[in-house]
Amino acid sequence: MTERIVLAYSGGLDTSVAIGWIAEETGAEVVAVAVDVGQGGEDLDTIRKRALDCGAVEAVVTDARDEFADEYCLPALQANALYMDRYPLVSAISRPVIVKHLAEAAKYHGATTVSHGCTGKGNDQVRFEVGIGALAPDLRVIAPVRDFAWTREKAIAWAHDRNLPIDQTKSSPYSVDQNVWGRAVETGFLEDIWNAPIEDVYSYTDNPAVPRDADEVTITFDKGVPVAIDGETVTVLQAIQQLNRRAGAQGIGRLDMVEDRLIGIKSREVYEAPGAIALITAHQELESVTVERDLARFKRGIEQRWSELVYDGLWFSPLKDALDTFVAKTQEHVSGEIRMTMHAGRAVPTGRRSEQSLYDFNLATYDEGDTFDQSLAKGFVQLWGLPSKIAAKRDLHHHA
Amino acid sequence: MTERIVLAYSGGLDTSVAIGWIAEETGAEVVAVAVDVGQGGEDLDTIRKRALDCGAVEAVVTDARDEFADEYCLPALQANALYMDRYPLVSAISRPVIVKHLAEAAKYHGATTVSHGCTGKGNDQVRFEVGIGALAPDLRVIAPVRDFAWTREKAIAWAHDRNLPIDQTKSSPYSVDQNVWGRAVETGFLEDIWNAPIEDVYSYTDNPAVPRDADEVTITFDKGVPVAIDGETVTVLQAIQQLNRRAGAQGIGRLDMVEDRLIGIKSREVYEAPGAIALITAHQELESVTVERDLARFKRGIEQRWSELVYDGLWFSPLKDALDTFVAKTQEHVSGEIRMTMHAGRAVPTGRRSEQSLYDFNLATYDEGDTFDQSLAKGFVQLWGLPSKIAAKRDLHHHA
Amino acid sequence: MTERIVLAYSGGLDTSVAIGWIAEETGAEVVAVAVDVGQGGEDLDTIRKRALDCGAVEAVVTDARDEFADEYCLPALQANALYMDRYPLVSAISRPVIVKHLAEAAKYHGATTVSHGCTGKGNDQVRFEVGIGALAPDLRVIAPVRDFAWTREKAIAWAHDRNLPIDQTKSSPYSVDQNVWGRAVETGFLEDIWNAPIEDVYSYTDNPAVPRDADEVTITFDKGVPVAIDGETVTVLQAIQQLNRRAGAQGIGRLDMVEDRLIGIKSREVYEAPGAIALITAHQELESVTVERDLARFKRGIEQRWSELVYDGLWFSPLKDALDTFVAKTQEHVSGEIRMTMHAGRAVPTGRRSEQSLYDFNLATYDEGDTFDQSLAKGFVQLWGLPSKIAAKRDLHHHA
Amino acid sequence: MTERIVLAYSGGLDTSVAIGWIAEETGAEVVAVAVDVGQGGEDLDTIRKRALDCGAVEAVVTDARDEFADEYCLPALQANALYMDRYPLVSAISRPVIVKHLAEAAKYHGATTVSHGCTGKGNDQVRFEVGIGALAPDLRVIAPVRDFAWTREKAIAWAHDRNLPIDQTKSSPYSVDQNVWGRAVETGFLEDIWNAPIEDVYSYTDNPAVPRDADEVTITFDKGVPVAIDGETVTVLQAIQQLNRRAGAQGIGRLDMVEDRLIGIKSREVYEAPGAIALITAHQELESVTVERDLARFKRGIEQRWSELVYDGLWFSPLKDALDTFVAKTQEHVSGEIRMTMHAGRAVPTGRRSEQSLYDFNLATYDEGDTFDQSLAKGFVQLWGLPSKIAAKRDLHHHA
Repeated sequence: MTERIVLAYSGGLDTSVAIGWIAEETGAEVVAVAVDVGQGGEDLDTIRKRALDCGAVEAVVTDARDEFADEYCLPALQANALYMDRYPLVSAISRPVIVKHLAEAAKYHGATTVSHGCTGKGNDQVRFEVGIGALAPDLRVIAPVRDFAWTREKAIAWAHDRNLPIDQTKSSPYSVDQNVWGRAVETGFLEDIWNAPIEDVYSYTDNPAVPRDADEVTITFDKGVPVAIDGETVTVLQAIQQLNRRAGAQGIGRLDMVEDRLIGIKSREVYEAPGAIALITAHQELESVTVERDLARFKRGIEQRWSELVYDGLWFSPLKDALDTFVAKTQEHVSGEIRMTMHAGRAVPTGRRSEQSLYDFNLATYDEGDTFDQSLAKGFVQLWGLPSKIAAKRDLHHHA
Repeated sequence: MTERIVLAYSGGLDTSVAIGWIAEETGAEVVAVAVDVGQGGEDLDTIRKRALDCGAVEAVVTDARDEFADEYCLPALQANALYMDRYPLVSAISRPVIVKHLAEAAKYHGATTVSHGCTGKGNDQVRFEVGIGALAPDLRVIAPVRDFAWTREKAIAWAHDRNLPIDQTKSSPYSVDQNVWGRAVETGFLEDIWNAPIEDVYSYTDNPAVPRDADEVTITFDKGVPVAIDGETVTVLQAIQQLNRRAGAQGIGRLDMVEDRLIGIKSREVYEAPGAIALITAHQELESVTVERDLARFKRGIEQRWSELVYDGLWFSPLKDALDTFVAKTQEHVSGEIRMTMHAGRAVPTGRRSEQSLYDFNLATYDEGDTFDQSLAKGFVQLWGLPSKIAAKRDLHHHA
Repeated sequence: MTERIVLAYSGGLDTSVAIGWIAEETGAEVVAVAVDVGQGGEDLDTIRKRALDCGAVEAVVTDARDEFADEYCLPALQANALYMDRYPLVSAISRPVIVKHLAEAAKYHGATTVSHGCTGKGNDQVRFEVGIGALAPDLRVIAPVRDFAWTREKAIAWAHDRNLPIDQTKSSPYSVDQNVWGRAVETGFLEDIWNAPIEDVYSYTDNPAVPRDADEVTITFDKGVPVAIDGETVTVLQAIQQLNRRAGAQGIGRLDMVEDRLIGIKSREVYEAPGAIALITAHQELESVTVERDLARFKRGIEQRWSELVYDGLWFSPLKDALDTFVAKTQEHVSGEIRMTMHAGRAVPTGRRSEQSLYDFNLATYDEGDTFDQSLAKGFVQLWGLPSKIAAKRDLHHHA
Repeated sequence: MTERIVLAYSGGLDTSVAIGWIAEETGAEVVAVAVDVGQGGEDLDTIRKRALDCGAVEAVVTDARDEFADEYCLPALQANALYMDRYPLVSAISRPVIVKHLAEAAKYHGATTVSHGCTGKGNDQVRFEVGIGALAPDLRVIAPVRDFAWTREKAIAWAHDRNLPIDQTKSSPYSVDQNVWGRAVETGFLEDIWNAPIEDVYSYTDNPAVPRDADEVTITFDKGVPVAIDGETVTVLQAIQQLNRRAGAQGIGRLDMVEDRLIGIKSREVYEAPGAIALITAHQELESVTVERDLARFKRGIEQRWSELVYDGLWFSPLKDALDTFVAKTQEHVSGEIRMTMHAGRAVPTGRRSEQSLYDFNLATYDEGDTFDQSLAKGFVQLWGLPSKIAAKRDLHHHA
C-alpha cells in the first residue's frame, strides 16, 4: 500500500502547494486535515475542495470550535494563563487541538507521517512535534519549510508551474495566526522594536483611544466555567465570541511585547485577545473573593509554570497533566458573578457577588457588627515576627 | 529618669490625642515622630508644633521623601512588586521607613517603648511591630487602639475634655493612607463588594473615562533606576512625582480589589498609584528586552515572594535581604529607554531601545539578514520532547 | 443540658487529671476520647476504664491504626514528606487523625468545646486547633497547660489530693510521642545541642554501630501504595509495622536535628522512624524510574511545600487538599519492585523493576542495541545554550 | 596563519588519538589542554609530553585543583547541591573549570575552535558547548565522537596504524570520570537496573559493611567555608581531600541511582563522593542552627534550581549568577563547628556549636529559665488558622 502523509492544512497558498510538493518528493499520498478553531475566513467545504483539487487523496475538515473552547481555552482561563504575565497563549493552545485531529486522522487513514508548515525558528514547530510525539509516538514528522528550506517564493513558482487553483494576488504584509481565543500578528516593520504598531495591524479590536460609551457586563461563573453573560446562559464558545465582539469594540486585549521564545531568541509579537483578556480579568476577580489565601498565593506560581509549559509545547506532558489536576481542584468554589465596565481598552471589575465568597463583611468591617477579636492579633504579631527578631538580636550582637 | 515612649505621629486627631493619653496612662514622656514620605497635607513645622502643644516632650519631624523613594520605592520598582499581581504595596513599603525613624529616635532619645495607632485587624500593626523587633529587638511596643480598645469616639471626647488644639470639624467618610508611591482608601460603602467606587474616592487620579489627549512619555533607566524622563535627568523621587502628575492626569493606576490580609481575612481595598504603575509598566517592558529568558522566568517567582514578604510585614527579614541581592543582580543590564503612551487609564509601551538589548534583529527577522540556523531546530525539538514521548509510549503500552 | 467538653485523652497522668480538673473548673461534663494510632502501651479497654474512673461522663476509644496508615501515613509516603529534608512528620500527621475523631465525638456527644493538653510553645497546639477550626469551626478549644499554666507538678498534687487511680511512680526523663509512623523524644540534656543522644533515648531502633548481618528486602508498590513485602501481600499498616521491626533492627531511621518550629523558635528533636524512612527510600527510588523528569523535578518543590504545610498544622486546608490532587496524579505509574539492603543504619536500594519503567535500556546503553540518534544532540545543545550565549555576547561587548 | 584548534585533553587513548585525527581531518594545528582537577593518575609532565608526541603543536597543562575547590566545589557545598536530592554534581562542576581553561587557551593561542570528546547522549557535551558559548561565544565547537561517529575501535586502529606512543593493553570494563569532588562510574552490567553494583566498581570508598571503628571529626566553618578540621586549619581543597580519605575509609558517599539526563533519557549512574557528602552533611547541619526559618525554607527551593541548572550545563548563565548572589548572602552567618561520627557508610552530626546560633536555649527549654511567653500562642494559632476556618465554614454551609 502506498504510504500516507497527513498534512496540517490551512487552505492557504503554502499548505495548498505543499500537498503536491510533498506527494512528488516522497511518493506518498497526502491526506489534508483542516481544523476550524474559530479562525474565520473561508468555509470548511471550500477548503476541503481546494485540498482535493490540489491533489490530496483525502481531505478532512472539522469544526472543532466547541472542543477548542471547552478543552483548551477553558483550562487556560482557569489557569489565568498569561505567559510572561501578558500573553494568553493564543497560538500555543490551538496547536494541541490541531495535533489531536492530525493524530486521529493519521490513525484513521493509516498514515505513517505527519507534516506541518512551521519554520525552524518559532515555537509552533515544537508544539506540533512534541504534541505528535506524545499522542502518537510512532509517527514521523516532516517540516518542509524547516527541513527542506521550502519558501513562499518557491511555493508561488511551484503553484504557477502546475497551474494550481490558488489565488496569489492577495499579498499581505502581515503574518497572522488567529482563532477564537485571539489573534497574533507579525510583520517586518514591527521587527524594529522602537516602532509602535499602527491601527492597520488590528482586526479583532477597535481603537481604544476613540471616545465611545462604556459597556457594562456581568459574567456568571460556575466552578470556574463562564456560564452566563448578563444573565443569559452561554456555552464557553459563546462566552468567548460575545466578549470578543463587546470587549473588542472597546479596544480591550491589545498586546505588544518582546517575547522569550522557547528556541532561545527574543521576538516582537503583537496580539489581540479581547474575549480572553476580559474573561481572565473577571475570573481572577472572582478567585480573589472565593479562593483561600494560601491556595491563591500558591496558584499564582502554578499558573506561571502552566503557562510556560504550554508556551513551550508541552501541552501533552505528564507535568501539565498533574498541574491540571491542581488547577481543577482550585475551581471548586469559583462560582458567582463579576460585574465589569469595559471601556477604552480596559475591563475593570466593579462588583463581585458569590455564595461561595470568603469575604466576610462582619470580619472586615470597621463599623458596627465587627466580630473580629482584635486581642488575638498581639500574640500573632509577636510570634509571626519572632524568627526575624531572634536573627536581629544575633546580628546586633555580632555587629556590635 | 522618666521612661520615654516614641509615638508614630501623623498630626491627625487620633495620634495627637494619643500623646496625652499615653503619657497619662503610663506616666512616661512621649516623643512624637513624624516622617514625611510624600503624604502631602500640612507642613512639618505645623505638625511639630501641634505635637508639642499636645504634650509631647520632644517632636521629631523628618523629610524622608528621597530616602523613601531611593531605598523603599526603588527596590519595589525593581522587584515589579505587585501583591496579588496588582497592589504596588503603597502602605506596605512606607511602614518600614517610618519604623526606621522610630527606632532611631528611640535610641537617640533613650526611649524603651514605641507606640503606633494601628488597629488589630490590619496589616500595618504587623509591619510596625515586626519591623521594630528586627531593628531594635529590645524595644517594647504598645498599640492603644488594639490593646486598649481606644476608639475615635473616645479620642474626640478626650480632646474635648482637655481642650486640645485639634480641629474636629473635618469629618471624612474615608480612611486614607497616602505617600509618594500611592494612596489607599477605605470607606464604609465599599465594604459591600458589589458596590463600585465613586469618583469622590479618588484624589491622585482624574477620571480615565473623560476624553482627553494622550500623553507620550519616554523613561530612561540605568541599571534598573529611572534616571531621566523625556530626556531630562530626574531623581527617583522626581520620577515618581512627575509620573504621579502625568499618569494621574490620564487616570492611570486606579485599583479596586479584594485583598488577602496577613491576619487571615479578605478585605476590600481601593488604591491609586499612577506613578508606581507607570514606572513598573515601563520597567517590566525594559526587562523583557534586557533580561535573559531563564532569569526572567525565575524572577517572576521571586517577585511574588518579595511582594508577599513585604506585604506581610517582613521588610526587615533575612529572606527579604537575600531576595534583594537576587533582584539587584538582575538589574545589571536593565538600561535603556521605554516610550509609552499614557491615555484613558492605560500606560502602553510602544517603543524600546537599549544598548543592553538581547533582542537580536538578525536572529528574529524573517527577512533578509536572517542568521538563525533553522537546521538546529530539528534536533532541539526531538530531544526537548523526548521525556514526554517516552512517557507516552509507556502509557500507550499500558492502556492498550 | 449540661455543657460537654471533649478531651483528647492519652491515658497518662496529665490528661487523666485533666478530666476532673476541667469538669471542676468549667462545670461541664467531660467526654474522654483516646485514639490508637499505633503508640503501643496499654490496651484500649484499660484506658477507657481509667477515663471513667477519673470522672469522664463518656470514654470513647478507637483503634484508628489502619485509618492512620491508609489516610495519613500513605499520603505522607507518596509525598516523600520530609520536613527540612529529614523529619517524616511523625507527630504532625497523627494530630489530624486525632482531631478528626475529636470532632466526630464532639458532634455525636453534643459537645461545644474540645480540650487538648499541648503547651504554648510547640507545634501540636497549632495542629489541634487549626484542625478543629477546619473540621468543626463552631467548636471552642481550651488548652489548660497553655491557657491556665497547668503544670505536671500541679497535676500530681491534684491527683494525690483526690486519690485518683493513677500510678505516679513511673517517672521518665523523656517526653515521648509515638505512633506507627515513628517516635519523637525530647529530654533536658538534649537541649544542649552540642550533646549527642545516648542509646537510652531510642526504643524503635537498635544501635546501628553493632555488627550484624544485613537484611535484604523487596518492596512492591502499586500506584504508589506498598502492597507486598518479599512477595507477601501486606496492608499499608502491615508494611509499616514489618519495616519498623526489620529496619529498626538495623538501626535505620534515627534522626537528630535542630528544627524550625512554626511558632518561631529552633528546637532540638530526636526521632526514630525506621519503617517510614525505609518506605520513603524505596518509594523515591521507584519514582526515579517511573516518573517523567519535569514532573519529578516539580514534585520535589511540591513535596517541600506539602511537608511545610502539614508540619505547620494545615493538614485540613484548601492548599493541602489541592496539593494532594497533584501528588495523587503523580502516583499513577509508580508501580513495581525495589530491592533494598538494610544494614548498619542505612536502607540502600540495589535493584528496581517496573513494567511502568521509563528507563529504556536501548536508549541508555553504550553497547550494541543503542537506538539513540546522537546527531540530534548538536542542534539541541546549540539552542539550549542560545539564551546564555546571546547574553554573553552582550556582556562581552559591554565589558570590552 | 594555520588555523588552530584547542582540544580538551585527558592523556588517555581517545583524546591522544584525536590530536592527530583532528589535525589530519581539518588541516588545523592542535593545541592540547589538560586540566588537573584532582583526577589523580599520571603527572602533568607525562601527559604534556604525550600530547606533543602525538602531534600537538602546543600542550598546556594546569594544576587547577585549588581553583576547582575554591570556585566550583565551594559554591556547590554552599548550595548543598544534590541533583535529584542525591548526586553532588561531580562531573557537572568539573566541566565549567575545564571550559574556562579551554577558552583561555584558545584566546592565548589564537584558536578559532574548541574540540571535546563527549558523546551525543550524555550531559557533558552540553556542559562543554554551552560553557564555551557563554565564555567565548565566537568559538566554534567540534565533537568528533558525536559529530563524526568516531569510536574507540576506530581510535585503536588509527593509533596502531600510525604507531602512536599509547598503551592499548589496559582495557577496563568501566567508564570513569573522577576529580577531587567525587567519582562517576558507568559499565555495561549496571545498565540492567535490577543488578546491584559490585565492590570492584568502587575506588574512593571502602566497603561500609565491613566492621571497623568509627571516626569522629569536627569541622569548622567560617561564613560557609570549611576552614578547619579537628582544629587544624585547612584550605577547601585540603578539607575535601582529607574527608575523601577519612569518610571514604568509612564507606561514606556511595550513590547508586537512576538519573534524569538533560537530553531526555534516564540512565543508571554510580558515584562515590565521600568528602562531598561529609561536607554537605556538616554544612546543612550548621545551616539548620544559623539560618533563619523562612530563609532556610526558601533556600531549599533555590538549591534544587541551582543543582538543576548546573547539572543542565548552565554554570555560566545569568540565572546561575543571580542564584549565586542569593546563596552567598545566606552564608553570612554560617560559622561554627559541627561534630560528626563517620561510620559504616554514614556521617551523622552529633554536636553543633556556633556564636551565630539562632537556637536559644532559654526559648527552647521546658526547664527552668524558660523565657517563652506561652500566652502569645493563643492569638497566633487562631489567626494562623483563620483562612482555613473561614473556608471550612463556607464549605460546610454549601455541603449541608
